[in-house]
Parts: sequence; structure tokens; C-alpha cells
Amino acid sequence: MVESNYRFIKACFGEEVDATPIWIMRQAGRYLKEYRAIRKEVDFLTLCKTPELAAEVTIQPIDILGVDAAILFSDILLIVEAMGLPLQFNPGPVLEETITDIPSVDRLGLPDPEETMPFVMETIRVLRRELDGRVPVIGFSGAPFTLASYMIEGGSSSNFLKVKTLIFQHPDVWHRLMKKVTAAVIEYLKAQIEAGAQAVQLFDSWGGSLSPKDYRENALPYSKEIFSALSGSGVPSIHFVQGNPAILPLVASAGSDVVGVDWRIEIGKARDNIGRDIPVQGNLDPCALFLPPERIEERAAEIIEQAGPRGHIFNLGHGILPPTPVENAKALVAAVHKLSSK
Amino acid sequence: MVESNYRFIKACFGEEVDATPIWIMRQAGRYLKEYRAIRKEVDFLTLCKTPELAAEVTIQPIDILGVDAAILFSDILLIVEAMGLPLQFNPGPVLEETITDIPSVDRLGLPDPEETMPFVMETIRVLRRELDGRVPVIGFSGAPFTLASYMIEGGSSSNFLKVKTLIFQHPDVWHRLMKKVTAAVIEYLKAQIEAGAQAVQLFDSWGGSLSPKDYRENALPYSKEIFSALSGSGVPSIHFVQGNPAILPLVASAGSDVVGVDWRIEIGKARDNIGRDIPVQGNLDPCALFLPPERIEERAAEIIEQAGPRGHIFNLGHGILPPTPVENAKALVAAVHKLSSK
Repeated sequence: MVESNYRFIKACFGEEVDATPIWIMRQAGRYLKEYRAIRKEVDFLTLCKTPELAAEVTIQPIDILGVDAAILFSDILLIVEAMGLPLQFNPGPVLEETITDIPSVDRLGLPDPEETMPFVMETIRVLRRELDGRVPVIGFSGAPFTLASYMIEGGSSSNFLKVKTLIFQHPDVWHRLMKKVTAAVIEYLKAQIEAGAQAVQLFDSWGGSLSPKDYRENALPYSKEIFSALSGSGVPSIHFVQGNPAILPLVASAGSDVVGVDWRIEIGKARDNIGRDIPVQGNLDPCALFLPPERIEERAAEIIEQAGPRGHIFNLGHGILPPTPVENAKALVAAVHKLSSK
Repeated sequence: MVESNYRFIKACFGEEVDATPIWIMRQAGRYLKEYRAIRKEVDFLTLCKTPELAAEVTIQPIDILGVDAAILFSDILLIVEAMGLPLQFNPGPVLEETITDIPSVDRLGLPDPEETMPFVMETIRVLRRELDGRVPVIGFSGAPFTLASYMIEGGSSSNFLKVKTLIFQHPDVWHRLMKKVTAAVIEYLKAQIEAGAQAVQLFDSWGGSLSPKDYRENALPYSKEIFSALSGSGVPSIHFVQGNPAILPLVASAGSDVVGVDWRIEIGKARDNIGRDIPVQGNLDPCALFLPPERIEERAAEIIEQAGPRGHIFNLGHGILPPTPVENAKALVAAVHKLSSK
């Protein structure tokens, strides 16, 4: 298949497609028994760091669900470990060392991705070989705000008080950290593209915790720098900030090719708010996969009607949940293709 | 003081005020050493259920911060206990029995508030006596969606999967539960007003987890019914749904006098989106109280500039956090009054 014929890539550039492409955030994951079978043998980090296995679980949903893109199986925090903060999962991510001051920022390394995370680039190379043109491979990174937040909080947080306190009381530390993380993310995404990634997504899982003012001043400039650095790469970029529809116009202003939209806003309104010429990705509530299959089709139809037909990549508004019935995920993929087929 | 002269009440009705009123969600709480001193002696539920003590902690922030309204010290889940589901705090709320089906809904009682929660109405009566007109007393209830969510999840949740699965798979159970909770909330708020509450707030802490479609179909009609039932009471009502600025126009359509706004959207945009004639309450990020005091004043000025001068009650966009420096909360209250004084 000629690369430019992938419906996913065409949709990223707002071109006409034969049917709306769909992939699902966390599509390689615990809701699949084939994934759980592999996880019985190896722990999560080992899976991320073993290219043959990571490629295998990446391909599972392509075979099982029939989605239109393969997203690299990995974790956004691998780069945090590569920068020098030891990472554990029990089962959520935990960083024992955190960032608190200028010296702790200065101790972070600016990693050469091929040296510190060779398994990521190798997984992409294996995927390109094994997929052999079936679907494109999406690479990804956490956005600087989310990565820096993990580095400061040491794990997840309900109110992000440590991050915001650092931003508010020690802006010099914050911006020094963000500059370093941004530089690392740029090198990381460039290395993924060099290895064969045909699109990249920047995940800002926590950016929605900020007010528009704080997002604009403390997160946006760094994400913008990343999309600017990637602009000559030729591969499309997707910017997904979760948790606050009010900042979507700011998110769009960062300059990605596609803007991800969570389920908190009608996707038609999201398109109106950011400008109809910018392609969007989304936005079914992951919990809607617990509806009966015929109702899932109704929901898919509403989203396609509002968002399509051009410049829309179907996805959930957040990662698929582990208890999701796989039959329902299959029903969604089939419904999206059927409803949108020319 | 004549009741109609309270600046808080006037602002709720969009009338001219001498200065922007301010109160703070969770203003009676752990950030105050005077509150912690009382909590050393009694547990949380005992404090809620002992009118003299509940009134004492309610009045503490009036004396210490100089806020313009006293909100009843209580917990939104007391009504859940009154309906028949035993409640514990360790330290977050835990319900051992949950709602799963029609019989479990039918076992819930429709409580007479004066019989099942006499301490709440007695606290309000004590407050009216002890405050003696200094500031008005705000009563409150959880909104039906949030209360029903607790009843189904049994505690807090990160994705509300149990609630949404019930809504999606057993809508008959959901709507039967919501009807009963709504009827109980109406009686509860009427009893609070009868006891002397001079305004009431409906807290929908979790409503922002729903997509606009699901909010419109599964939560909004019940909140609307409550404001409709209270419309002849003469006391102003405030509707606060946390976590999703995209549904603010729907929130406003429920018919309260005032719409609460969290920090995820500029409050000026919120006013534009819901209509400038509807008063608003909000919306400083609780974490902004960790800024240096002069920067807190800048933030207050921006909000007052966007939201005021008419129809604005200053508040945080969510509850004040326990580690907040009390001096900073005082600085905020003083700044709001100074900046907005005629």
C-alpha cells in the first residue's frame, strides 16, 4: 500500500477518505485476553522494553478489532526514566526521586533516545517490518506539562498541588525544567520518526487541570515548540489534552495537524471552537462501550455526523477501560467503518 | 441588618452592591487551626451532627477571614445515610451498601428531614441566632447525580464506570433512583429554608464527568426539578457543577439564580456562554492561594474585571485545600473587597 493512501494519514491532513479511520487510545491493553496472556509472562516495563513483545501487543488490536492505525506499545514515563529518575509501577507509576529545585533539574540528563531507549525505536522498526504497510505506526510522547507534573508529584495526583505550587512559587525552577523536558521530547519524537513512525501524538493527560491563563503561560509555549520542531518532518502530529474543553482553542494554537478531543464537549462544537479547517480526533466516552452494541452504533453515528466527513479520526475521548467487552470494541470499529463508508 | 441589604444576597439577584461579596467553598475546614482544634476532640460525622459545634466551625471563617456568607457545616452524604445507606468516613466516604437494582432503590426511604436529620436544621437555627444578621446563612445539598453516583459507586471514583454502566445498561433503575433522590433533596432544601437558610447551593461535584448528551438526559432534568420546586421560596439558589465548562449553558438552563463556575474557563467567557444576565459565582483555582499575596491580588483583579461588577459572587473554583496558608485566604478576601469597593 502506498503510504499516502492510508485513510488515517489522509484524515490527519484533512483529505477525502473512503471511510472514517478509527483507532482507540490504549487499544493494546488489558481488555484483550491476548494481551493479558502475554502480561502473565512479563511485567509491564519488561513488555515495554522488549521490542518483539511490544510489537506483538501493538499488532493485536489491528488483527482483532480492525483499527486503522497501530500505536506503539510503550509508556509516556520511559523518557522520565531515561532522563534519570528511576521509575516503578505498583501498579500505578511511582517516582522515588522528584524535582524540587534547580539542582534537581540540573541533574536530569538530556538523553540520546537511541542510547537510552533503543527498545522504543527498535519496536517501531519491528512494527514497520511486520505490519508491512497494513496500517501506519503512530509514535508518541507525553507532553512537557504532564511529564514535568509526574516528575514533581512523583505519581498521579487529584489536585496537582505540588506542581502548581512549584509553578506559582518557583517559576524559575518550573521553566528550567520545562525547557529541558521539551528538548528531550523533541529528540525523542524525532528519533521515533527517524525509526519509522508515520504519525506522532503528544499526550497531555493532565493539561486540563490548569486554568486557561496558567495553561497559556506554563504549558502551551513548550508544546508549541515541539510541533514547530517537528513541522518539517512530513509526518502528521496529533495534540491531545485531556480534561478541559475550554482550552481547546489554545490547544489548537500549539500548531499540531490534528487536535484530540475528549468526551466532555460535542465534537461538532469543538470543531466550531477551534476552526473547521483543523482536523480532530475523538470523542466517544470510554464508558459508552458498555452500552448495548446497537446503542454504540447510535453514538458513533452522532459523532460522525457532527465531526465528519473530512478531517475526522474516530477515537475514544480517553483510553479504553480494562473491563470493556472486546465485542463492543469490535462493534464500534465496524460501526464507524460502515456508517462512514462512501 | 435588613436581610435585603446583604451584599451576597443582592449579588445573587444581580443587584448593585457596595463591594463584590466573597465566600469560599469549604471555608470551615482543616486549613484553619481553630477548626483542627475542634476536630481533635470529635470525629467528622459527630461534628456534622452536633449543632453547637457545627455552628461554631461555620462561624470561624466569618470571624477569621471576613467572608460575606456562612455556609452550613455539613456533608452532602448525610442525606444518603438518612435514606438508608450506612455511611462511614475512613477518611473518604464509604458506603457498604450500594444501589444495583430496582429492589435496592425501593428499599431507600424518603426521609422527613426534621426527623432523620434534625441536627442540620438545628444548626441553621443556631447559626441564625448566633450570627444575628452579620452575614446570611447558605444551606446546601448534593445534586441528584452526585448523590446517586455515591450510592452506586460506594465512594469516589476516577472514571464513574459503575454509574455510567448502570445508566447505559439499566436506565429504568437509574431514573427510578434519580426520582427518589430528587424528591428527597427537595424536601431537604425546603426544610433548610424553613429553618432559616437564606440561600441554598446545589453541589454537583461529579456532573462534569458526563458528556453533554448524557448530562442533558440523565442529570439535568432532576436538577431542574429541584430549582423549579424552590422557585417560590424567595431565597436565591446557586447551581455548581464541577469539572466541565462545556456544559455550563446546560447547567444554567436548570433554572438557578446563580451559576457556579470552576477555574477551567475564564469567568468572562463563562458569562458570555450562559448569558450576561445570569449571576455567576467563582472562580479562582484553589491552588492559586499558594501564590505570593501580591500575586493573589492580581488574580482576584482579573476575575473581578471579567465577571463584575454586577451579578458576581467571588469564590474559589473548588474547595479550599487543607494545606492553604490562612494568611493567603485572608489576603484574598481583603483584596476582593478592596478591589471592588465603590
